[in-house]
Amino acid sequence: MTSTPNLLQHVRIVLCQTSHPGNIGAAARAMKTMGLSQLVLVNPKSFPHADAIAMASGASDILDNARVCSSLTEALSDTTLAIGMSARRRELSHELVSAHTSVQRAIATAHQAAVAFVFGTEMSGLSNAELDHCQLLAMIPANPEYSSLNLAAAVQIISYELRMAALDNPQPAHSETTQPLATNEDVERLYSHLEQTLIEIGFLNPDQPKRLMQRLRRLYGRTALEQEEVNILRGILSATQSPRPPESTNS
Amino acid sequence: MTSTPNLLQHVRIVLCQTSHPGNIGAAARAMKTMGLSQLVLVNPKSFPHADAIAMASGASDILDNARVCSSLTEALSDTTLAIGMSARRRELSHELVSAHTSVQRAIATAHQAAVAFVFGTEMSGLSNAELDHCQLLAMIPANPEYSSLNLAAAVQIISYELRMAALDNPQPAHSETTQPLATNEDVERLYSHLEQTLIEIGFLNPDQPKRLMQRLRRLYGRTALEQEEVNILRGILSATQSPRPPESTNS
Repeated sequence: MTSTPNLLQHVRIVLCQTSHPGNIGAAARAMKTMGLSQLVLVNPKSFPHADAIAMASGASDILDNARVCSSLTEALSDTTLAIGMSARRRELSHELVSAHTSVQRAIATAHQAAVAFVFGTEMSGLSNAELDHCQLLAMIPANPEYSSLNLAAAVQIISYELRMAALDNPQPAHSETTQPLATNEDVERLYSHLEQTLIEIGFLNPDQPKRLMQRLRRLYGRTALEQEEVNILRGILSATQSPRPPESTNS
Repeated sequence: MTSTPNLLQHVRIVLCQTSHPGNIGAAARAMKTMGLSQLVLVNPKSFPHADAIAMASGASDILDNARVCSSLTEALSDTTLAIGMSARRRELSHELVSAHTSVQRAIATAHQAAVAFVFGTEMSGLSNAELDHCQLLAMIPANPEYSSLNLAAAVQIISYELRMAALDNPQPAHSETTQPLATNEDVERLYSHLEQTLIEIGFLNPDQPKRLMQRLRRLYGRTALEQEEVNILRGILSATQSPRPPESTNS
Protein backbone atom coordinates (compact mmCIF):
# COMPACT_ATOMS: atom_id res chain seq x y z
CA MET A 1 0.00 0.00 0.00
CA THR A 2 1.42 3.37 -1.00
CA SER A 3 1.30 5.95 1.79
CA THR A 4 -0.98 8.98 1.65
CA PRO A 5 1.67 11.52 0.66
CA ASN A 6 3.03 9.24 -2.03
CA LEU A 7 -0.39 8.50 -3.40
CA LEU A 8 -1.06 12.21 -3.77
CA GLN A 9 2.30 12.62 -5.54
CA HIS A 10 0.84 10.44 -8.25
CA VAL A 11 -2.02 12.84 -8.89
CA ARG A 12 -1.44 15.69 -11.30
CA ILE A 13 -3.52 18.83 -11.59
CA VAL A 14 -3.52 20.06 -15.19
CA LEU A 15 -4.80 23.57 -15.93
CA CYS A 16 -5.44 24.31 -19.61
CA GLN A 17 -5.02 27.83 -21.04
CA THR A 18 -5.72 29.57 -17.78
CA SER A 19 -6.48 33.26 -18.39
CA HIS A 20 -5.77 34.75 -14.98
CA PRO A 21 -2.43 34.01 -13.32
CA GLY A 22 -4.00 34.75 -9.93
CA ASN A 23 -6.13 31.65 -10.42
CA ILE A 24 -3.01 29.57 -10.97
CA GLY A 25 -1.59 30.81 -7.67
CA ALA A 26 -4.85 30.19 -5.81
CA ALA A 27 -5.01 26.68 -7.33
CA ALA A 28 -1.44 26.02 -6.12
CA ARG A 29 -2.44 27.07 -2.61
CA ALA A 30 -5.54 24.86 -2.74
CA MET A 31 -3.43 21.90 -3.84
CA LYS A 32 -0.80 22.36 -1.17
CA THR A 33 -3.33 22.61 1.66
CA MET A 34 -4.43 19.10 0.71
CA GLY A 35 -0.94 17.68 0.17
CA LEU A 36 -0.87 17.73 -3.64
CA SER A 37 2.17 19.09 -5.44
CA GLN A 38 2.15 18.14 -9.13
CA LEU A 39 0.92 21.16 -11.09
CA VAL A 40 1.04 21.19 -14.89
CA LEU A 41 0.09 24.22 -16.97
CA VAL A 42 -0.87 23.91 -20.63
CA ASN A 43 -0.30 27.19 -22.49
CA PRO A 44 -1.10 29.54 -19.62
CA LYS A 45 -1.85 33.06 -20.80
CA SER A 46 0.58 34.68 -18.33
CA PHE A 47 3.05 32.64 -16.32
CA PRO A 48 5.16 33.18 -14.31
CA HIS A 49 3.37 36.25 -12.97
CA ALA A 50 3.35 38.32 -9.77
CA ASP A 51 -0.39 37.70 -9.30
CA ALA A 52 0.23 33.97 -9.23
CA ILE A 53 2.85 34.33 -6.52
CA ALA A 54 0.65 36.68 -4.49
CA MET A 55 -2.33 34.32 -4.58
CA ALA A 56 -0.20 31.24 -3.84
CA SER A 57 0.59 32.63 -0.40
CA GLY A 58 2.95 30.07 1.16
CA ALA A 59 2.58 27.66 -1.76
CA SER A 60 4.97 29.28 -4.23
CA ASP A 61 7.08 26.12 -4.22
CA ILE A 62 4.26 24.48 -6.16
CA LEU A 63 4.53 27.26 -8.74
CA ASP A 64 8.33 26.97 -8.87
CA ASN A 65 8.03 23.29 -9.63
CA ALA A 66 5.10 23.60 -12.05
CA ARG A 67 5.68 22.12 -15.48
CA VAL A 68 4.62 24.30 -18.42
CA CYS A 69 3.60 22.37 -21.53
CA SER A 70 2.56 23.36 -25.02
CA SER A 71 0.00 20.59 -25.44
CA LEU A 72 -2.32 18.48 -23.35
CA THR A 73 -0.69 15.36 -24.78
CA GLU A 74 2.60 16.47 -23.32
CA ALA A 75 0.94 17.30 -20.00
CA LEU A 76 -0.57 13.83 -19.76
CA SER A 77 2.66 11.92 -20.47
CA ASP A 78 2.95 8.79 -18.30
CA THR A 79 -0.59 9.03 -16.94
CA THR A 80 -2.90 6.06 -17.20
CA LEU A 81 -6.07 7.92 -16.29
CA ALA A 82 -7.03 11.48 -17.21
CA ILE A 83 -10.24 12.88 -15.77
CA GLY A 84 -11.72 15.94 -17.43
CA MET A 85 -13.67 18.37 -15.26
CA SER A 86 -16.89 19.69 -16.68
CA ALA A 87 -19.50 22.10 -15.37
CA ARG A 88 -22.12 20.85 -17.78
CA ARG A 89 -23.25 17.72 -19.56
CA ARG A 90 -21.63 17.21 -22.93
CA GLU A 91 -23.12 16.06 -26.16
CA LEU A 92 -20.25 13.72 -26.73
CA SER A 93 -21.02 11.01 -24.25
CA HIS A 94 -17.96 10.35 -22.22
CA GLU A 95 -18.75 8.46 -19.10
CA LEU A 96 -19.84 11.16 -16.65
CA VAL A 97 -19.44 10.68 -12.90
CA SER A 98 -19.57 12.88 -9.81
CA ALA A 99 -16.37 14.47 -8.52
CA HIS A 100 -16.55 12.13 -5.54
CA THR A 101 -16.74 9.01 -7.68
CA SER A 102 -14.01 10.21 -10.02
CA VAL A 103 -11.68 10.68 -7.07
CA GLN A 104 -12.31 7.14 -5.83
CA ARG A 105 -11.22 5.84 -9.20
CA ALA A 106 -8.24 8.17 -9.36
CA ILE A 107 -6.93 7.06 -5.97
CA ALA A 108 -7.43 3.40 -6.83
CA THR A 109 -5.35 3.95 -9.96
CA ALA A 110 -2.74 6.11 -8.23
CA HIS A 111 -1.51 3.08 -6.33
CA GLN A 112 -0.02 1.92 -9.62
CA ALA A 113 0.44 4.90 -11.92
CA ALA A 114 0.05 8.61 -12.48
CA VAL A 115 -3.40 10.11 -12.88
CA ALA A 116 -4.49 13.60 -13.90
CA PHE A 117 -7.41 15.92 -13.28
CA VAL A 118 -7.78 18.28 -16.22
CA PHE A 119 -9.37 21.72 -15.84
CA GLY A 120 -10.33 23.99 -18.75
CA THR A 121 -10.37 27.75 -19.11
CA GLU A 122 -12.23 30.01 -16.70
CA MET A 123 -14.72 31.07 -19.38
CA SER A 124 -15.54 27.96 -21.34
CA GLY A 125 -14.02 24.93 -19.66
CA LEU A 126 -12.48 22.12 -21.68
CA SER A 127 -12.87 21.98 -25.44
CA ASN A 128 -14.13 18.80 -27.04
CA ALA A 129 -10.65 18.24 -28.48
CA GLU A 130 -9.20 18.41 -24.98
CA LEU A 131 -11.88 16.07 -23.65
CA ASP A 132 -10.84 13.52 -26.25
CA HIS A 133 -7.64 13.09 -24.26
CA CYS A 134 -9.57 12.18 -21.13
CA GLN A 135 -10.95 8.76 -20.25
CA LEU A 136 -13.54 9.99 -17.80
CA LEU A 137 -15.59 13.13 -17.33
CA ALA A 138 -16.33 14.39 -13.83
CA MET A 139 -18.77 17.02 -12.62
CA ILE A 140 -18.92 18.79 -9.28
CA PRO A 141 -22.61 18.73 -8.34
CA ALA A 142 -23.43 22.44 -8.15
CA ASN A 143 -26.46 24.69 -7.88
CA PRO A 144 -28.14 24.36 -11.29
CA GLU A 145 -29.08 28.03 -11.12
CA TYR A 146 -25.50 29.16 -10.48
CA SER A 147 -22.79 26.63 -11.17
CA SER A 148 -20.02 29.16 -11.72
CA LEU A 149 -17.29 27.74 -9.53
CA ASN A 150 -14.09 29.71 -9.52
CA LEU A 151 -11.25 27.62 -11.04
CA ALA A 152 -9.28 27.51 -7.78
CA ALA A 153 -12.46 26.61 -5.87
CA ALA A 154 -12.97 23.63 -8.18
CA VAL A 155 -9.34 22.60 -7.67
CA GLN A 156 -9.90 22.97 -3.91
CA ILE A 157 -12.87 20.60 -3.94
CA ILE A 158 -11.08 17.98 -6.02
CA SER A 159 -7.94 18.26 -3.88
CA TYR A 160 -10.03 17.92 -0.73
CA GLU A 161 -11.80 14.84 -2.08
CA LEU A 162 -8.42 13.39 -3.08
CA ARG A 163 -6.99 13.88 0.39
CA MET A 164 -10.08 12.38 2.01
CA ALA A 165 -9.89 9.36 -0.30
CA ALA A 166 -6.16 8.94 0.21
CA LEU A 167 -6.29 9.15 3.98
CA ASP A 168 -6.66 5.79 5.62
CA ASN A 169 -8.48 7.34 8.55
CA PRO A 170 -10.24 10.48 7.42
CA GLN A 171 -11.92 11.16 10.77
CA PRO A 172 -9.86 12.86 13.42
CA ALA A 173 -9.96 10.28 16.21
CA HIS A 174 -12.34 11.55 18.84
CA SER A 175 -10.76 9.26 21.41
CA GLU A 176 -7.49 11.20 21.44
CA THR A 177 -9.10 14.33 22.73
CA THR A 178 -11.59 12.89 25.16
CA GLN A 179 -11.17 12.32 28.83
CA PRO A 180 -11.98 8.98 30.47
CA LEU A 181 -15.70 8.35 30.47
CA ALA A 182 -17.63 7.89 33.68
CA THR A 183 -18.58 4.36 34.59
CA ASN A 184 -22.18 3.33 34.93
CA GLU A 185 -21.72 3.24 38.73
CA ASP A 186 -20.38 6.80 38.74
CA VAL A 187 -23.39 7.96 36.81
CA GLU A 188 -25.83 6.09 39.03
CA ARG A 189 -24.27 7.71 42.10
CA LEU A 190 -24.68 11.07 40.37
CA TYR A 191 -28.38 10.38 39.80
CA SER A 192 -28.87 9.40 43.46
CA HIS A 193 -27.07 12.52 44.61
CA LEU A 194 -29.09 14.64 42.19
CA GLU A 195 -32.40 13.14 43.33
CA GLN A 196 -31.55 13.63 47.00
CA THR A 197 -30.55 17.25 46.38
CA LEU A 198 -33.70 18.00 44.39
CA ILE A 199 -35.77 16.72 47.31
CA GLU A 200 -33.80 18.84 49.77
CA ILE A 201 -34.33 22.05 47.79
CA GLY A 202 -38.00 21.26 47.35
CA PHE A 203 -37.89 20.85 43.57
CA LEU A 204 -38.79 17.17 43.62
CA ASN A 205 -41.67 15.98 45.73
CA PRO A 206 -40.90 12.34 46.55
CA ASP A 207 -44.62 11.68 46.94
CA GLN A 208 -45.27 12.94 43.43
CA PRO A 209 -42.03 12.49 41.56
CA LYS A 210 -43.68 12.37 38.13
CA ARG A 211 -41.09 11.68 35.46
CA LEU A 212 -38.51 14.23 36.53
CA MET A 213 -35.65 11.82 37.17
CA GLN A 214 -36.39 9.98 33.95
CA ARG A 215 -36.19 13.23 32.03
CA LEU A 216 -32.89 14.09 33.66
CA ARG A 217 -31.50 10.61 33.05
CA ARG A 218 -32.40 10.92 29.43
CA LEU A 219 -30.67 14.29 29.19
CA TYR A 220 -27.40 13.19 30.78
CA GLY A 221 -27.61 9.75 29.26
CA ARG A 222 -27.31 11.27 25.80
CA THR A 223 -24.01 12.99 26.49
CA ALA A 224 -21.65 10.18 27.50
CA LEU A 225 -20.48 11.94 30.66
CA GLU A 226 -16.79 12.01 31.46
CA GLN A 227 -15.47 11.17 34.94
CA GLU A 228 -14.33 14.72 35.47
CA GLU A 229 -17.74 16.07 34.47
CA VAL A 230 -19.45 13.81 36.99
CA ASN A 231 -17.09 15.19 39.64
CA ILE A 232 -18.01 18.76 38.70
CA LEU A 233 -21.73 18.04 38.75
CA ARG A 234 -21.49 16.31 42.12
CA GLY A 235 -19.46 19.23 43.43
CA ILE A 236 -22.27 21.55 42.40
CA LEU A 237 -24.80 19.30 44.14
CA SER A 238 -22.75 19.32 47.37
CA ALA A 239 -22.50 23.11 47.22
CA THR A 240 -26.25 23.26 46.64
CA GLN A 241 -26.81 21.17 49.75
CA SER A 242 -24.44 23.28 51.87
CA PRO A 243 -24.08 26.62 50.21
CA ARG A 244 -21.29 28.94 51.26
CA PRO A 245 -21.99 32.63 50.68
CA PRO A 246 -19.83 33.93 47.82
CA GLU A 247 -18.04 36.37 50.16
CA SER A 248 -16.57 33.51 52.16
CA THR A 249 -14.74 32.14 49.14
CA ASN A 250 -12.49 35.18 49.18
CA SER A 251 -11.82 35.19 52.88
CA MET B 1 -39.30 15.56 4.40
CA THR B 2 -37.74 18.93 3.73
CA SER B 3 -36.41 19.30 0.18
CA THR B 4 -32.73 19.90 -0.59
CA PRO B 5 -32.98 23.61 -1.34
CA ASN B 6 -35.02 24.19 1.82
CA LEU B 7 -32.59 22.22 3.94
CA LEU B 8 -29.76 24.42 2.75
CA GLN B 9 -31.83 27.49 3.63
CA HIS B 10 -31.60 26.35 7.22
CA VAL B 11 -27.81 26.48 7.18
CA ARG B 12 -26.14 29.76 8.02
CA ILE B 13 -22.54 30.68 7.23
CA VAL B 14 -21.21 33.03 9.92
CA LEU B 15 -17.96 34.90 9.24
CA CYS B 16 -16.41 36.57 12.31
CA GLN B 17 -14.35 39.77 11.97
CA THR B 18 -13.27 39.10 8.43
CA SER B 19 -10.33 41.35 7.51
CA HIS B 20 -10.51 41.31 3.72
CA PRO B 21 -13.81 42.15 2.04
CA GLY B 22 -12.67 40.23 -1.05
CA ASN B 23 -12.85 37.07 1.03
CA ILE B 24 -16.45 37.85 1.94
CA GLY B 25 -17.31 38.12 -1.73
CA ALA B 26 -15.47 34.91 -2.61
CA ALA B 27 -17.24 33.14 0.25
CA ALA B 28 -20.61 34.36 -1.08
CA ARG B 29 -19.76 32.95 -4.50
CA ALA B 30 -18.68 29.64 -2.95
CA MET B 31 -21.96 29.45 -1.03
CA LYS B 32 -24.14 30.21 -4.02
CA THR B 33 -22.49 27.60 -6.26
CA MET B 34 -23.63 25.03 -3.71
CA GLY B 35 -27.11 26.45 -3.16
CA LEU B 36 -26.53 28.17 0.19
CA SER B 37 -27.79 31.69 0.75
CA GLN B 38 -27.74 32.63 4.45
CA LEU B 39 -24.63 34.72 5.09
CA VAL B 40 -24.09 36.45 8.44
CA LEU B 41 -21.16 38.76 9.14
CA VAL B 42 -20.02 39.55 12.67
CA ASN B 43 -18.14 42.85 12.82
CA PRO B 44 -16.57 42.69 9.36
CA LYS B 45 -13.65 45.09 9.00
CA SER B 46 -14.94 46.58 5.73
CA PHE B 47 -18.42 45.86 4.44
CA PRO B 48 -20.03 46.66 2.09
CA HIS B 49 -16.98 47.06 -0.14
CA ALA B 50 -16.20 47.05 -3.87
CA ASP B 51 -13.76 44.13 -3.45
CA ALA B 52 -16.54 41.99 -1.99
CA ILE B 53 -18.79 42.70 -4.97
CA ALA B 54 -15.96 42.03 -7.44
CA MET B 55 -15.10 38.67 -5.89
CA ALA B 56 -18.73 37.61 -5.55
CA SER B 57 -19.05 37.55 -9.32
CA GLY B 58 -22.69 36.60 -9.97
CA ALA B 59 -23.42 36.05 -6.28
CA SER B 60 -23.88 39.63 -5.17
CA ASP B 61 -27.46 38.83 -4.15
CA ILE B 62 -25.95 36.85 -1.27
CA LEU B 63 -24.05 39.98 -0.21
CA ASP B 64 -27.15 42.15 -0.56
CA ASN B 65 -29.05 39.85 1.78
CA ALA B 66 -26.18 39.31 4.23
CA ARG B 67 -26.99 40.13 7.83
CA VAL B 68 -24.38 42.20 9.69
CA CYS B 69 -24.26 41.63 13.45
CA SER B 70 -22.30 43.14 16.29
CA SER B 71 -21.94 39.92 18.26
CA LEU B 72 -21.77 36.20 17.66
CA THR B 73 -24.71 35.74 20.02
CA GLU B 74 -26.81 37.89 17.71
CA ALA B 75 -25.55 35.99 14.67
CA LEU B 76 -26.58 32.68 16.20
CA SER B 77 -30.12 33.72 17.15
CA ASP B 78 -32.62 30.92 16.52
CA THR B 79 -29.95 28.33 15.80
CA THR B 80 -29.91 25.06 17.69
CA LEU B 81 -26.49 23.90 16.52
CA ALA B 82 -23.42 26.06 15.95
CA ILE B 83 -20.32 24.38 14.54
CA GLY B 84 -17.02 26.21 14.95
CA MET B 85 -14.37 25.69 12.28
CA SER B 86 -10.84 25.20 13.52
CA ALA B 87 -7.55 24.61 11.74
CA ARG B 88 -5.90 23.21 14.84
CA ARG B 89 -6.62 21.17 17.91
CA ARG B 90 -7.63 23.20 20.94
CA GLU B 91 -6.60 22.74 24.50
CA LEU B 92 -10.08 22.73 25.86
CA SER B 93 -11.44 19.79 24.03
CA HIS B 94 -14.76 20.52 22.50
CA GLU B 95 -15.90 17.48 20.67
CA LEU B 96 -13.83 17.63 17.49
CA VAL B 97 -15.02 15.99 14.31
CA SER B 98 -14.07 16.10 10.66
CA ALA B 99 -15.77 18.58 8.35
CA HIS B 100 -17.55 15.66 6.73
CA THR B 101 -18.99 14.38 10.00
CA SER B 102 -19.97 17.86 11.16
CA VAL B 103 -21.94 18.34 7.96
CA GLN B 104 -23.84 15.09 8.46
CA ARG B 105 -24.94 16.33 11.87
CA ALA B 106 -25.78 19.78 10.56
CA ILE B 107 -28.01 18.40 7.83
CA ALA B 108 -29.74 16.02 10.22
CA THR B 109 -30.49 18.97 12.51
CA ALA B 110 -31.47 21.28 9.65
CA HIS B 111 -34.60 19.19 9.14
CA GLN B 112 -35.91 20.80 12.33
CA ALA B 113 -34.09 24.05 12.97
CA ALA B 114 -31.44 26.51 11.91
CA VAL B 115 -27.77 25.54 12.14
CA ALA B 116 -24.63 27.62 11.70
CA PHE B 117 -21.05 27.09 10.60
CA VAL B 118 -18.84 29.68 12.26
CA PHE B 119 -15.57 30.83 10.68
CA GLY B 120 -12.96 32.98 12.43
CA THR B 121 -10.56 35.61 11.14
CA GLU B 122 -8.15 34.93 8.31
CA MET B 123 -5.14 35.27 10.61
CA SER B 124 -6.08 33.53 13.82
CA GLY B 125 -9.38 31.72 13.39
CA LEU B 126 -11.96 31.65 16.17
CA SER B 127 -11.15 32.90 19.65
CA ASN B 128 -11.84 30.65 22.62
CA ALA B 129 -14.63 33.02 23.63
CA GLU B 130 -16.22 32.58 20.21
CA LEU B 131 -15.79 28.82 20.43
CA ASP B 132 -17.70 28.83 23.72
CA HIS B 133 -20.79 29.68 21.68
CA CYS B 134 -20.36 26.59 19.52
CA GLN B 135 -21.53 23.10 20.41
CA LEU B 136 -19.19 21.28 18.08
CA LEU B 137 -15.76 21.90 16.62
CA ALA B 138 -14.98 20.79 13.07
CA MET B 139 -11.69 20.54 11.26
CA ILE B 140 -11.02 20.21 7.56
CA PRO B 141 -8.36 17.51 7.34
CA ALA B 142 -5.49 19.38 5.71
CA ASN B 143 -1.80 18.93 4.98
CA PRO B 144 -0.14 19.15 8.40
CA GLU B 145 2.81 20.94 6.82
CA TYR B 146 0.63 23.60 5.21
CA SER B 147 -2.90 23.86 6.49
CA SER B 148 -3.42 27.46 5.44
CA LEU B 149 -6.76 27.25 3.68
CA ASN B 150 -8.04 30.52 2.33
CA LEU B 151 -11.26 31.52 4.13
CA ALA B 152 -13.38 31.26 0.97
CA ALA B 153 -11.77 27.90 0.17
CA ALA B 154 -12.83 26.60 3.57
CA VAL B 155 -16.35 27.93 2.98
CA GLN B 156 -16.30 26.22 -0.43
CA ILE B 157 -15.44 22.84 1.08
CA ILE B 158 -18.10 23.08 3.78
CA SER B 159 -20.69 24.29 1.26
CA TYR B 160 -19.79 21.43 -1.07
CA GLU B 161 -20.09 18.89 1.73
CA LEU B 162 -23.42 20.43 2.73
CA ARG B 163 -24.80 20.13 -0.77
CA MET B 164 -23.60 16.55 -1.06
CA ALA B 165 -25.15 15.68 2.30
CA ALA B 166 -28.41 17.46 1.50
CA LEU B 167 -28.64 15.59 -1.79
CA ASP B 168 -28.32 12.36 0.17
CA ASN B 169 -31.14 13.71 2.31
CA PRO B 170 -30.58 11.73 5.50
CA GLN B 171 -33.42 11.17 7.91
CA PRO B 172 -33.75 13.46 10.91
CA ALA B 173 -31.39 12.34 13.66
CA HIS B 174 -33.87 11.35 16.35
CA SER B 175 -37.20 11.42 14.66
CA GLU B 176 -38.83 9.37 17.41
CA THR B 177 -38.41 12.01 20.06
CA THR B 178 -38.65 15.21 17.99
CA GLN B 179 -39.18 17.46 20.97
CA PRO B 180 -38.50 21.04 19.99
CA LEU B 181 -34.84 21.85 20.54
CA ALA B 182 -33.80 24.82 22.64
CA THR B 183 -32.64 27.86 20.72
CA ASN B 184 -29.24 29.41 21.19
CA GLU B 185 -30.87 32.21 23.23
CA ASP B 186 -32.58 29.73 25.55
CA VAL B 187 -29.31 27.96 26.17
CA GLU B 188 -27.38 31.20 26.72
CA ARG B 189 -29.96 32.24 29.32
CA LEU B 190 -29.53 28.87 30.97
CA TYR B 191 -25.75 29.40 31.15
CA SER B 192 -26.22 32.88 32.68
CA HIS B 193 -28.66 31.51 35.23
CA LEU B 194 -26.32 28.62 36.01
CA GLU B 195 -23.31 30.89 36.44
CA GLN B 196 -25.23 33.24 38.74
CA THR B 197 -26.48 30.35 40.85
CA LEU B 198 -23.03 28.78 41.16
CA ILE B 199 -21.73 32.10 42.44
CA GLU B 200 -24.57 32.37 44.94
CA ILE B 201 -23.93 28.91 46.37
CA GLY B 202 -20.20 29.59 46.55
CA PHE B 203 -19.20 26.93 44.02
CA LEU B 204 -17.88 29.42 41.48
CA ASN B 205 -15.55 32.18 42.61
CA PRO B 206 -16.04 35.00 40.09
CA ASP B 207 -12.54 36.24 40.86
CA GLN B 208 -11.08 32.86 39.96
CA PRO B 209 -13.58 31.28 37.60
CA LYS B 210 -10.98 29.00 36.02
CA ARG B 211 -12.62 27.08 33.21
CA LEU B 212 -15.69 25.89 35.04
CA MET B 213 -18.25 27.54 32.76
CA GLN B 214 -16.41 26.35 29.67
CA ARG B 215 -16.49 22.80 30.99
CA LEU B 216 -20.20 23.04 31.68
CA ARG B 217 -20.89 24.62 28.27
CA ARG B 218 -19.06 21.76 26.68
CA LEU B 219 -21.07 19.19 28.63
CA TYR B 220 -24.46 20.64 27.79
CA GLY B 221 -23.34 21.71 24.31
CA ARG B 222 -22.89 18.05 23.38
CA THR B 223 -26.42 17.04 24.18
CA ALA B 224 -28.59 19.22 21.93
CA LEU B 225 -30.84 20.35 24.79
CA GLU B 226 -34.57 20.39 24.26
CA GLN B 227 -36.69 23.39 25.27
CA GLU B 228 -38.41 21.38 27.99
CA GLU B 229 -35.08 20.25 29.39
CA VAL B 230 -33.87 23.84 29.60
CA ASN B 231 -37.05 24.64 31.52
CA ILE B 232 -36.39 21.82 33.97
CA LEU B 233 -32.78 22.82 34.51
CA ARG B 234 -33.74 26.44 35.08
CA GLY B 235 -36.44 25.31 37.49
CA ILE B 236 -33.77 23.45 39.45
CA LEU B 237 -31.58 26.55 39.47
CA SER B 238 -34.44 28.71 40.76
CA ALA B 239 -35.14 26.18 43.50
CA THR B 240 -31.44 26.16 44.35
CA GLN B 241 -31.51 29.93 44.71
CA SER B 242 -34.65 29.88 46.88
CA PRO B 243 -34.95 26.44 48.36
CA ARG B 244 -38.15 25.38 50.02
CA PRO B 245 -37.80 22.74 52.69
CA PRO B 246 -39.20 19.42 51.53
CA GLU B 247 -41.81 19.47 54.32
CA SER B 248 -43.49 22.49 52.83
CA THR B 249 -44.20 20.66 49.57
CA ASN B 250 -46.57 18.38 51.43
CA SER B 251 -48.33 21.00 53.47
